[in-house]
Order: sequence, then structure tokens, then C-alpha cells
Amino acid sequence: MTLRRSRICKGCWQQMHLPVPLHGVVSVPFRVFGIRPSRMNPNTCTICELMFTTVMRARKITIDATVLFADLRGYTTLSQSHSQDAISGLLDAFYDECASAIWECDGLLNKTIGDAVMAVFNFPIRHADHARQGVLAARAIQRRWSARRKTLIEPLGLAGAELGVGVGIHCGELSFGEFGRSHRDLTAIGTVVNLASRAQSAAAAGEILVTQAIHERVQSDLAGSRPREFQLKGFEAPITLYPA
Amino acid sequence: MTLRRSRICKGCWQQMHLPVPLHGVVSVPFRVFGIRPSRMNPNTCTICELMFTTVMRARKITIDATVLFADLRGYTTLSQSHSQDAISGLLDAFYDECASAIWECDGLLNKTIGDAVMAVFNFPIRHADHARQGVLAARAIQRRWSARRKTLIEPLGLAGAELGVGVGIHCGELSFGEFGRSHRDLTAIGTVVNLASRAQSAAAAGEILVTQAIHERVQSDLAGSRPREFQLKGFEAPITLYPA
Repeated sequence: MTLRRSRICKGCWQQMHLPVPLHGVVSVPFRVFGIRPSRMNPNTCTICELMFTTVMRARKITIDATVLFADLRGYTTLSQSHSQDAISGLLDAFYDECASAIWECDGLLNKTIGDAVMAVFNFPIRHADHARQGVLAARAIQRRWSARRKTLIEPLGLAGAELGVGVGIHCGELSFGEFGRSHRDLTAIGTVVNLASRAQSAAAAGEILVTQAIHERVQSDLAGSRPREFQLKGFEAPITLYPA
Repeated sequence: MTLRRSRICKGCWQQMHLPVPLHGVVSVPFRVFGIRPSRMNPNTCTICELMFTTVMRARKITIDATVLFADLRGYTTLSQSHSQDAISGLLDAFYDECASAIWECDGLLNKTIGDAVMAVFNFPIRHADHARQGVLAARAIQRRWSARRKTLIEPLGLAGAELGVGVGIHCGELSFGEFGRSHRDLTAIGTVVNLASRAQSAAAAGEILVTQAIHERVQSDLAGSRPREFQLKGFEAPITLYPA
């Protein structure tokens, strides 16, 4: 896995024109104060992660952003019949490929939950075309995973397992920040997050499904994509989704 | 919300007999080195969180533990018709009540994902009766939330919304640690986690459903609980669950 590492924090540079070193000797004094590469995107720093509290003095912000969910199909079934080691090796590989794909597109790998990952685009690194970055990251996940999966089947004894990835993407206004007074944990909430998650549930293994909102912003990359209607949990009206 | 704060880290004390101060003047030198109350359980410290890498020199461990999922019902529907502020106020309150209930029972609030929380019991603070701690925490969540919810309906304009909590609990061996080489994030994986999550999906608003494994360990607290069979996604055979 190769990922071009940024030498200074891209978020701090973009938003404050502040060169915060992330690696090497010059980063040492910063590290003493807890400023280091973010776990969610190593090209940004921990200041960016906590930008709400340390810079903006807010606990949460409302932003226009893209949310991506990717989920490993067949994982629940698989984890009943395989050793913890095999499952853990599989997830290591899956998280790594997702992380690389997301970070290449300047996204934030916000959460890993069992066999699923959730990413946000347009924060803290801004991109006017964040919807497109989300689609590119989703395609990179599919491409990377289908190559990586082949190398795992034999060593992990996973022959016959499905192990495709389903991806869902949606964009719009969402709340991002720390919810709850007592437990501090960065998360995104709102309909955008819920619908992205539901789109992911609707996607078949190997498929990427995006919403109308994504389709409107990324038309050139989705030419010829045929919309389908889905009845999604928690949404009364049928939802139109496009394969990407 | 009142929560008795521990003055020293309960995890470090229990496992290494090391008194790591969490609050006050004596904690300052520790804080300089990044040792502070954990975000996941303020009665433990950041050393405990990273115990794998700093103390045990492993990246993940296999432990016998209890996993609890709690989810706010009706949230997806609600977030379509209410302001971000109302939703965010609602989640603030929900996370806080869950955190208090979980921490009182020495659990780790490992993740918040949209309207759901995931907790682990028996790490880093050990409890031989962790299954019972999980059940007590679940009951505390239901009790706290049903009181708190009433105070929110009017100020947030949520009249008529369901807003009950569904809880699922399971226990057994799971892998806990950092998965993926590039993205570092503590998480638990394995069938125990999957089944706890599915039990939660099966629970109605206001209900707690526990597995056979929990029932076996906590019989005295579940006397008279009538088992029901459920067909759960990803599991071929029907699964027996007990209301707690």
C-alpha cells in the first residue's frame, strides 16, 4: 500500500495558512503538545480534528458534505465459520484499502464499525467537488478491494466466500462535531448520514449506489447510469438511486 | 446528570497497581505526556485505551466480554421532519444518558454511530460478572431515557414521536484492538459483536433483548423471562432471545 504523505497539515494550511509539520524533526515540538497526524486522515492534524473546540469555539458545525458508507458483504456469515485470526486479517486488509482510497480523495475516515466504514468528504480539507471525490473514492475502494481480495482467499482459507463491498453515497447539509456533553467523539448526524447508510444497505456486493443529490453534482462521471427506485427503512417515499 | 468520578485510573490500578491521577494538580505532569481521562470511560485513562500497544505490545487481544448496542427508534423518520438543532439536542441527551448508564457499570462507550451506541464490558476495567453489568447498564439506559425523553418533547417540539430505545446484548470471546495498519481506531469484532447488533435490531422500542449466553450467566436477574425465536440477518438458524 503506497500513499503519498503530506509533509504539512493540509487542513491547517488550507484554512489558516499555517504550516503545521506532520513528520520529521520539525514535528517533534508539535508532538509534545499533542499535535500529530490525525488517525482519521494522516494528511491533516489533531488540531483539525478538534477545530470546533480549539479554533472555532463551537462544538459542532453544519457543513455541506458528502458521506460514504462501505460494508463488507457476507462478513457476518463468514465470522461464524472462520477463526478470529482469519476475520481479523480480512478486516485489517479491508480497512487499509478503504483508508487508502478515502485519503487519496482527501476524505476523513470517520468511523469503522465491525465490517463497515464511514467517510466524510469536505472536512477538514475542503473540496468544491466533494461529491465527485466521494464517487472517486468509492470506485477506488471497489478497484483496490477486488485486487486485494484475491490475495487473501488462499492464505485466510476463505474460498467460496462472497466478500464483495457495497457502497452508498449521499451529500447535503449535515451536522458534524461532538455530540453529548460527557462522551466526546466526532461524528456526523442528519438525514444525509442516514440516507447514505440506507443506500449502502441497498447496494449489492461490488455495487456503488448514489442518491439523486450526488447524481446532480457529478453528472459527467455518471453518464448513462440508470436510476432505480428503492423502498428504504425509515423513508416513506421510494428513493431513487443511481449505480456509479 | 451526576456521575461519581474516580480520582485515579481504575484500569491501571486494577491491572498494574499503578495510581495514575486523572484530575487535579497531580494530574498535570501526566497530561503533558498525553495521559488523561479516556473519552470512552472517564474513570480510566488513555494508557488503558492504548494498553495493547504501550503495555502489552500487541495490536489486538481476544477477551471474554459483553457487548451492548442501544439505538434510538424513530430517529431516521424524525430527522427528516425536524431541524438539525432539534435532532442534535436529542442526540446530545441520548448519548449522555447512555454514557452515564454505561460508565456506572464500568463499561467502555466504544462507539457512537448516528443514533446508536456500542459499549463493551470487561475492558479495560475487569468484572467477572460483566454480563450482569451489561444488563444493569441496559436497564439504566431505559430508565434514564424514559425520564429524560419527557423533558425533551416540548422544548424540542417532538410531540408524537416514538423515540424509544431498543437494546441488544451478547457475550463471549471477541477481538478488541486496532484493526488496519493505516487507520488506527479501537474496535471490537467477531460474532459476539454481530449478534449483539442483530439482537438490538430485533428489540422493540423500550425493549432489551439478550442472548442465550447472557441468560446463562445472569439467570437470577432474568427469572421468568420468556424466550422468543428470531430469524436474524446473516444467521441461518433461528436465534433465541430473552427480554431483560
